[in-house]
Amino acid sequence: MEIRVVNLQEKSDLIKELHQYKLIAELNNYQVKLVKAKREFIWHSHPETDELFLVVKGKMRLAFRDRTLEVKKGELIVVPKGVEHKPICKTLCTVMLIEPSGTLNTGNTGGQLTDTNLERI
Amino acid sequence: MEIRVVNLQEKSDLIKELHQYKLIAELNNYQVKLVKAKREFIWHSHPETDELFLVVKGKMRLAFRDRTLEVKKGELIVVPKGVEHKPICKTLCTVMLIEPSGTLNTGNTGGQLTDTNLERI
Repeated sequence: MEIRVVNLQEKSDLIKELHQYKLIAELNNYQVKLVKAKREFIWHSHPETDELFLVVKGKMRLAFRDRTLEVKKGELIVVPKGVEHKPICKTLCTVMLIEPSGTLNTGNTGGQLTDTNLERI
Repeated sequence: MEIRVVNLQEKSDLIKELHQYKLIAELNNYQVKLVKAKREFIWHSHPETDELFLVVKGKMRLAFRDRTLEVKKGELIVVPKGVEHKPICKTLCTVMLIEPSGTLNTGNTGGQLTDTNLERI
């Protein structure tokens, strides 16, 4: 079993393409992913699981139906399962996600923005 | 369900006592904990689970039986289940841990350093 130290800034710098999720670690049956984004994503929820976001670079707004929260570098938030949300990165941001393996980025909404190509970096 | 933004540096600054694990978030049946440490911990393993460490402040050395890795602020590492390890913070460090609820800090070794008093901050 390989044990690696993962530097989040270095991994972020490796990512050249926006909106493509990269696998950076695994924790039991959970995946730790990194994505670089500059977009307003779509409304969706994950009926089966909570989802942890940790902002590594920049800031993200996380819209819920009743309010919008800002999550900045060095901050994390857990979206409970079943809660509709929409991540918004108006400026370039890098976000780490932790969720069970196989969790889709578009949750129950699906569609063209679904990214199933999870390259390990 | 309360949804909170958790600022890791701010939470770290709140912690006054060393070596007392604090609960800062939950992800399904996993707990996200923060601990401020300055000690050489004990050899132990977690036979049932992997364990994720992310260094929030300072640096930690993580000893394995065959080598020692340094994990600095902004870096994470996953210790696979069953692998003996010993965290060492020679200088003051703050570390975030993610592992299933009920995972003991001393793993299969137990003893006086076991901390079961997990206050939420």
